Amino acid sequence: MFKQLKSFVFGSPLDSKSETEERLNVPLGLAIFASDALSSSAYATDEILIALVGIISISSVSNNSNADVGLDLSNLFMCVPVAFAIAFLLAIVVVSYRQVIKAYPGGGGAYTVAKDNLGPSSSLLAAAALLLDYVLTVAVSVCAGIAALTAMFHATTGAQAVIEEHASVGLALLAIVAIAYVNLRGVRESARVIALPAYLFIFCMLSLITVGVFQSIVYQPPQPPVYHGVQIGVEHLAFGLLFFKAFAHGCAALTGIEAVSNGVKAFKEPSVQTANLTMVLMGSLLGVILLGLTYLALVHQIIPVEGDTVVSQIARAVLNKQDVFYYVIQLSTMSILLLAANTSFGGFPRLAMILARDGYLPRQLMNVGDRLVYSNGIVLLASMAAVLVIAFHASVHNLMPMYAIGVFLSFTFAQAGMVARALRAGGTNPDVKGMVINGVGALVTLLVSCLLCLEKLTSGAWIVLISLPMIVFMFRNINRHYETMHHQLAVPSKEYHPQALDHTVLVLVASLNKGVLPALEYAKSISKRVEAVHVELNPEATIQLQKDWEAWGSGIPLTVLKSPFRSLSGPLLKYIDEVDKRHEHDIVTIIIPEIMAKKWWHNLMHNQTAIAIKTMLMFKPGKVVTTIRYHLSE
Amino acid sequence: MFKQLKSFVFGSPLDSKSETEERLNVPLGLAIFASDALSSSAYATDEILIALVGIISISSVSNNSNADVGLDLSNLFMCVPVAFAIAFLLAIVVVSYRQVIKAYPGGGGAYTVAKDNLGPSSSLLAAAALLLDYVLTVAVSVCAGIAALTAMFHATTGAQAVIEEHASVGLALLAIVAIAYVNLRGVRESARVIALPAYLFIFCMLSLITVGVFQSIVYQPPQPPVYHGVQIGVEHLAFGLLFFKAFAHGCAALTGIEAVSNGVKAFKEPSVQTANLTMVLMGSLLGVILLGLTYLALVHQIIPVEGDTVVSQIARAVLNKQDVFYYVIQLSTMSILLLAANTSFGGFPRLAMILARDGYLPRQLMNVGDRLVYSNGIVLLASMAAVLVIAFHASVHNLMPMYAIGVFLSFTFAQAGMVARALRAGGTNPDVKGMVINGVGALVTLLVSCLLCLEKLTSGAWIVLISLPMIVFMFRNINRHYETMHHQLAVPSKEYHPQALDHTVLVLVASLNKGVLPALEYAKSISKRVEAVHVELNPEATIQLQKDWEAWGSGIPLTVLKSPFRSLSGPLLKYIDEVDKRHEHDIVTIIIPEIMAKKWWHNLMHNQTAIAIKTMLMFKPGKVVTTIRYHLSE
Repeated sequence: MFKQLKSFVFGSPLDSKSETEERLNVPLGLAIFASDALSSSAYATDEILIALVGIISISSVSNNSNADVGLDLSNLFMCVPVAFAIAFLLAIVVVSYRQVIKAYPGGGGAYTVAKDNLGPSSSLLAAAALLLDYVLTVAVSVCAGIAALTAMFHATTGAQAVIEEHASVGLALLAIVAIAYVNLRGVRESARVIALPAYLFIFCMLSLITVGVFQSIVYQPPQPPVYHGVQIGVEHLAFGLLFFKAFAHGCAALTGIEAVSNGVKAFKEPSVQTANLTMVLMGSLLGVILLGLTYLALVHQIIPVEGDTVVSQIARAVLNKQDVFYYVIQLSTMSILLLAANTSFGGFPRLAMILARDGYLPRQLMNVGDRLVYSNGIVLLASMAAVLVIAFHASVHNLMPMYAIGVFLSFTFAQAGMVARALRAGGTNPDVKGMVINGVGALVTLLVSCLLCLEKLTSGAWIVLISLPMIVFMFRNINRHYETMHHQLAVPSKEYHPQALDHTVLVLVASLNKGVLPALEYAKSISKRVEAVHVELNPEATIQLQKDWEAWGSGIPLTVLKSPFRSLSGPLLKYIDEVDKRHEHDIVTIIIPEIMAKKWWHNLMHNQTAIAIKTMLMFKPGKVVTTIRYHLSE
Repeated sequence: MFKQLKSFVFGSPLDSKSETEERLNVPLGLAIFASDALSSSAYATDEILIALVGIISISSVSNNSNADVGLDLSNLFMCVPVAFAIAFLLAIVVVSYRQVIKAYPGGGGAYTVAKDNLGPSSSLLAAAALLLDYVLTVAVSVCAGIAALTAMFHATTGAQAVIEEHASVGLALLAIVAIAYVNLRGVRESARVIALPAYLFIFCMLSLITVGVFQSIVYQPPQPPVYHGVQIGVEHLAFGLLFFKAFAHGCAALTGIEAVSNGVKAFKEPSVQTANLTMVLMGSLLGVILLGLTYLALVHQIIPVEGDTVVSQIARAVLNKQDVFYYVIQLSTMSILLLAANTSFGGFPRLAMILARDGYLPRQLMNVGDRLVYSNGIVLLASMAAVLVIAFHASVHNLMPMYAIGVFLSFTFAQAGMVARALRAGGTNPDVKGMVINGVGALVTLLVSCLLCLEKLTSGAWIVLISLPMIVFMFRNINRHYETMHHQLAVPSKEYHPQALDHTVLVLVASLNKGVLPALEYAKSISKRVEAVHVELNPEATIQLQKDWEAWGSGIPLTVLKSPFRSLSGPLLKYIDEVDKRHEHDIVTIIIPEIMAKKWWHNLMHNQTAIAIKTMLMFKPGKVVTTIRYHLSE
C-alpha cells in the first residue's frame, strides 16, 4: 500500500538501464547552463545600487513622496563604472574557465581540479564552498524569483511589506518543495522545455535594454523623478571605499558562471569547442545585460525600494505604463530564477554523491532512488535551503553577504589548480599562455574573495568563514570513521570458517497464553538450551503464571525474576549477564513474543517492551534479541 | 547514561512497598479536596457578569473613559438573584452527593456509580464526560490562574491585551509543564503544604467580603463609577432568557464539587462522617464566597474588562488603593487555581488506569512509573490541556462553554445511578428519603445539563456533544480489540507442547568482510540449512563478491538476486516467499549483519537496511528477522 502511494506520487520505479543522454548543441547548452549565470543579473544591479544609495523602506515610500526620503543620490552615477569593472572581472573569469574546459573535457568542477592538482585539503575546502553555494543558489534564486512575483503585485496594489514578508517566505518554501518534487520524480530535463523561459528572459532583457537605451538617446527619459537634498563632494578615500563596496556587492552577478565547465560531457562533439563557445556567449550576454540594466537604472534614477526590484522599476520606467510586456518581463525573470534554483538540484546531489564515494559524506548520499536520482541529496539540499529562507525571511539582500564568497573561493581553487597542473606538466614545453591566464584568474578571484570577506564580514560572511572549516572537519571525521571501519572489516582469512556456537535461548513470558507458543517453538528450533523468563511486576500475576505453567507441563523451565522497582529491563539485563557467564564462547538469544494485531493502530494498545530491550542490548556484543510475533486473526 | 539523567530529573526509582497513606481530618480534607471547587469562585462571577452586560475590550478602555463604553448596565442587578439560584443548586448537589458518600465509602466517582447501577453504556458516557472535565479543569484553572497574575500586572502597568495573550499562553503552558513535572516526580502531596494556600485563599475571600459588605452598609461605597446610557425596561420574556443565560454561565461555580466523594477512603475514621462534614463545609464556603463576591460586584458596579478579573476589580474597589493585601489576594487566587489544576493530575490518571484495567483504554495507562505514579496518564493529560490552552488562546471565557456540561452530565449519571440502586435494593424497606434526594438531584442536574447544551451550543458546547460519543466509540473499539485478543490467546491445551520446527536461514550479504562473520556463525548455530543472499545493486560489486566468496570457500552457498529497479527489499521479499514454499511447516529466518560503531552518531553513516526489511516482514507470519551486530572496536 505504501509502495503504491509512493509510485503514485513519485512515479513508478525506473529500470537501471533506462538512463539515456541527450547531447547539447550551443543554443540548447546555453539554455541549460546559462540560467544560473544569467539569472544573477536579476539581482546584481539591486545590490550595486543598495551599496551606493541604500534602500528605501516601503513605509517611508507610502507616507512621503520620494522627494523627501533624503537618500544621498550623489553617488548613483558610480554604478556604471562599477558595472564595467564587474564586466571586466567576468571576462577574466570566462577566459580562465576556457582553460579548465580544455583540460577537463570529462567535466571539471572546482573539487575535481583541486583534488587532481592541489591535494585533499584544498579540494575539501573547495567542495565545502561548492556545497554551501549550491544551497545558497537555491535560497537566493528562489527568493529573488518570489521577489519578482511580489514586485508585480506591489506595483499593482501597493500592498504592505509586512504582509509580503510572510507571504514571501511561504511562497519561497512552496517553490523549493515544488522544485525538489520535480527532481525527485526525476523528470529528465528536456532541454527544449527549459530553453523556452531562458530565451524568453534573454529576449525580454535585450529588448528592454534596446528600447531603453534608444529612448535615452533620442528622447529625454520619460519623467525622471527629481530628488532633493542631493549632496555633492565625497572625499577621495571615501569615494574609493564606496566603489569597492559597490563592486563587492555586484560580484553576485558572477555566480553560476562555472556551470558550463562542470558539464562539458553533455555537449555535442567536438564537446570542448562547443562548450567553450557556449561559455563565451553566456559571458557576453551576461555582461551586456548587466551593463544595460545598470545604465538604465542610472538614466531613470532608479533607487532600491523594499518590496520592488530594480528590473521591475526599470521596466515600468521604460515602458512608462504597466502594459502586458511588464508582466511578461516579471514572469520570465521569475521563471529563469526558479530554473537557476533547479540547476542546483542537479549539481548538489552529484557532488554529494562524489564526496560520499570518496568517503567524505555518509554513504546514503550514493543511493540511487526509484527514479534514478540521488533522492537523499535532493531532500538534503531542499531542507537546508528551506532553513536559510526561513532564517533570512526570504530576503535576497540578507542572504547576499554569504553568497558570493563561496563562489569566488571555488573560482580561486579551480584556477590555482590549473596553474599547479601547468607547472607540473610543464617540463620542456610549458604552456606559458595558459599559465598566465589561469594565474591572473587565480590572483584576481583571490583578491575578490578577500575583498568580499572584508566588506561583508559582519553582515553575514562570518557565517561562511565559520562554516567552511567546520564542514571540512566533518568531511575528515566521516572519512576517518570509514577508513577505520574498512580496516577493521578487512576480508576474513581463508583459514577461518564460521562454526556453530554454543547457544542459550531465553523466552520472555508475561503470562501463559497462545501468543507465547510460536516464541517457545522457535526457541526449541534454534537451541537445546531453552529457558522461559518472567519478570515479576505484579505478584498475583506471577503466582498465577507459575500455577499455569506447572499445570501445562511443557518441560521448559521457568525462571522468575523479582523487580522491586517495577522495571522490566533492569532485572532482565542482570539475569542475561548471569546466563552469559555460565558458558564460555556462547551466545544468548532473548526471544520476545509479540502480539501482532491485524489493524496497525491496534498495536498502539500493546506494550512496546521489545523496543526498549532491543535498544538496551544494542551495544552489548554476544547478545541477540529476536521478536517472534503471534498474528491475531481478527 | 540515560538512566542517570532520568534519575536526576525525575528522582531515583521508588520501591513498590514505599506507598504509604496519610489519613485526613476535616480541616486537611477540606484543604485537599476543596481547591478545585472553591477556586471556581475565581471565575464564576466573571461569567455571570459577562452574560448580563458583556465584556469591555481593553482597547476601548484605554481609549475612552468607562462612561462612554455604552454597555447596557440595567441588568446588572440580576447578578444577585442568579447567584442565589446557583447557591440553591449547589445545596441540592451537595445534599445529593452526601448520599453517594454514604453508599460508596470506598470512593464512588460517577463512573463507578453508573457502572454499578446503570450498566456499561451510561458508565462509559460518564467516564468520557469525566475525562473531558479533568482536561478542561486543568486548562481552565491554569488559564484563570494566569489571568489572576496578569490582572495584577494590568492593574499596575496597563499593558496591552495583545502582548498579554501571547504571554498568557506561554505562562499557562509553563504552568502545565511545571505541574506535570511535579506529578511525574510523584512528590507525595503533603496535606499540610497544600493546606496553606487553600486556607490563605479562604481567609482572603472571607476578609474581603466582610470588609466589603461592612463598607457597603456603613458607608457609601467608595466612589462607585457612574455609567451613562443606562436603558431601563427589558421585556419579561427577554428578562427570563437573560436570567437563564446568566444562570448557565454561573454554573461554572459548581465544578469540582464531586471531588470529596471520589476520595472518601482518604479520610480519618469514621470516614463517611468526616467526608460528609467536609462536603457540607466546602459547599457552604463556596456558597458564601460566590454570593459575597457577586454582591460586592453589584455594589461597586464592576463590569468585566478584558485583561482584568472581577475578583481583582472588587479587591481594588474595596481596598480603594493597590495596597499589599490586593497582591496577596491575587497571588492566593492564582495558587488555589494552580492547586485545582493539580488535583486533576491525581484524578485523571487514576480514572484512566481504572478504564484501562476494565479494558476500555490502552494498557499502557496502567503502567506504574519509577516514581509510583501513572506517568503515561499524566503526560496524556498535560498534552491535551496544552492543546486546549493553545487552541483557545488561554482565555477562560472561551473555554467555558465546553466546561460545565461534562460536570453536570456526570452529576446526573451519579445521581441517577443512586436512584437505580435504591430502587433495586428497595424491597420491603425502601430508602424513600434517599431516593427523593437523589431523584431531585438527578432531575435538576439533567435540566441544567440541557440548559447548558442549549445556551452554549454554538459557542463551544458542540465540541463536547461531538466528542462524547466519539470517546465512547473509542472505548468500545478498544474493548472489542482486547476481548477478541483475549479470546484468541486463551491458555493452550495441556496436550499441545511446542516442538522444534524445520528451519531455513538466509544471511543477507552486501560484500565479504568481517562484519558478515558473526551473522554466518549465528546462522550455523541455529540451523543446518544456511544460505547467503546478495541483492545486486551494482554489477561490479556483485562480480567482486562472487570472486571473493569462491576464493574464501566457506561452504555456504551464495545466491545472487537481480534487482533491475535497485530495490533491496523487492527481490528479497520475492525470494523469501520462494524459499518458504520449498518446505512445509517451516520458518524462514533472515539474518541481517549490521555494523555497530562505537559512537552512536557514526551509525547514522550506515545504511539502515534492517529497519526497512523488518517493517516489511512485520505483518507476514512464519518469517523472522534477526539483526546480528558486528561491534567495531574503534
